[in-house]
Amino acid sequence: MKINKYEDISQIDRESKKDYIDRHSAFVYCENKTKKEEQFKVKVKIGDEYQHPDDPDHYISWVQLWNGEKMLTQANFTEGVLGGVAGNLEMDFYIVPQKNLKLTAQAFCTKHGLWQSDEVLVEVE
Amino acid sequence: MKINKYEDISQIDRESKKDYIDRHSAFVYCENKTKKEEQFKVKVKIGDEYQHPDDPDHYISWVQLWNGEKMLTQANFTEGVLGGVAGNLEMDFYIVPQKNLKLTAQAFCTKHGLWQSDEVLVEVE
Amino acid sequence: MKINKYEDISQIDRESKKDYIDRHSAFVYCENKTKKEEQFKVKVKIGDEYQHPDDPDHYISWVQLWNGEKMLTQANFTEGVLGGVAGNLEMDFYIVPQKNLKLTAQAFCTKHGLWQSDEVLVEVE
Amino acid sequence: MKINKYEDISQIDRESKKDYIDRHSAFVYCENKTKKEEQFKVKVKIGDEYQHPDDPDHYISWVQLWNGEKMLTQANFTEGVLGGVAGNLEMDFYIVPQKNLKLTAQAFCTKHGLWQSDEVLVEVE
Repeated sequence: MKINKYEDISQIDRESKKDYIDRHSAFVYCENKTKKEEQFKVKVKIGDEYQHPDDPDHYISWVQLWNGEKMLTQANFTEGVLGGVAGNLEMDFYIVPQKNLKLTAQAFCTKHGLWQSDEVLVEVE
Repeated sequence: MKINKYEDISQIDRESKKDYIDRHSAFVYCENKTKKEEQFKVKVKIGDEYQHPDDPDHYISWVQLWNGEKMLTQANFTEGVLGGVAGNLEMDFYIVPQKNLKLTAQAFCTKHGLWQSDEVLVEVE
Repeated sequence: MKINKYEDISQIDRESKKDYIDRHSAFVYCENKTKKEEQFKVKVKIGDEYQHPDDPDHYISWVQLWNGEKMLTQANFTEGVLGGVAGNLEMDFYIVPQKNLKLTAQAFCTKHGLWQSDEVLVEVE
Repeated sequence: MKINKYEDISQIDRESKKDYIDRHSAFVYCENKTKKEEQFKVKVKIGDEYQHPDDPDHYISWVQLWNGEKMLTQANFTEGVLGGVAGNLEMDFYIVPQKNLKLTAQAFCTKHGLWQSDEVLVEVE
């Protein structure tokens, strides 16, 4: 099956395509340095400038956070978690690293499949 | 199967029992008032004064957040998400309420089963 | 939150209540004896005489199989897995027991909450 | 992150590599024809000639079944579901197709990451 990847929407002309790509893309937000064995916050957010529906037949039903080849955590959602209002699904995970991290998030839209974030590198001292 | 519930550990004498109950209990932290259709942060944390192991054969493998009879979200964890170090598993969910909330969290320990938080009421204007 | 349990529908008069209870109830089907360390099939089926919808806003989104206090497996479903047709969600798990089993299944309906099966005892020689 | 794919082990010389690839690979077993709106059984099995451990720090923790770009179902497992004995994790899903299927399974090993099956085509009349 296809894994959709983020594209820089400033390079895309068509408004509907910008919207489609942006609202499905997963973004990983965190510090780029941290300390070994300390709690480390990682925010995952779906969409940046555009919002995704939260309709019964069209919503983001799960998000995974990976460190390299290892899945750390997966959050599943029941439709309606955003009150049925279009928005940006978001969650904060707190992990404890032992060495450098290579974080990637994936999100699954019930209508438009699988989307993968860019990789985020974190230096762990 | 049994659902374990939080007990006030200040009322418990035996240190090992305080530890056992506290480190498995799920706690829901959020404001007690919010506005309809606004993003609302809900923190779920496992344990308060005591820490839970993150060992391959003994860790918290999932946490659910419920609003009344509806499950909103479930986060699954792979062992090692806390770096193999004892700690307090924690995550922030962001939901969008339409009316008053009755939030409950459940956590599953791979050795000690299911634990349910107290219910937290949120007034939604 | 409330855990709904199976009631014997032959004891219930009202047709709509029979339907409501039956179509949500989880049933565990397996042999009542097996051998240690041998693969053992456990079928979980939701509903018996009545069928449950598979609508985007109303479907069975997950099923868990428990052995006593330990969750063995959880299957999550995307709406549409039954083709949008009312039916009886069903799956077969294959487990390998080491000692006697006390099996329970739970099912979550996105509209009508959590339902728990009767407990099924299996003797393991 | 990397998605490992099945390789024909008869073409591989090294015994340890045959074992590594086979025991992690997901296989989809089902009829190649079925009827619209009829219940259809799909078996997913991990490994064929070689067995995978079921150790606390090394086991298959989830399996997904996809139809094209849509995930149909995901089963999560707690370590010990195979009694701690090396074996072939297996489950049967029952789906109801509306049109031709393109089935793929993915499996996640807690030590060796993500593995994807070959695609299986099913004609639906």
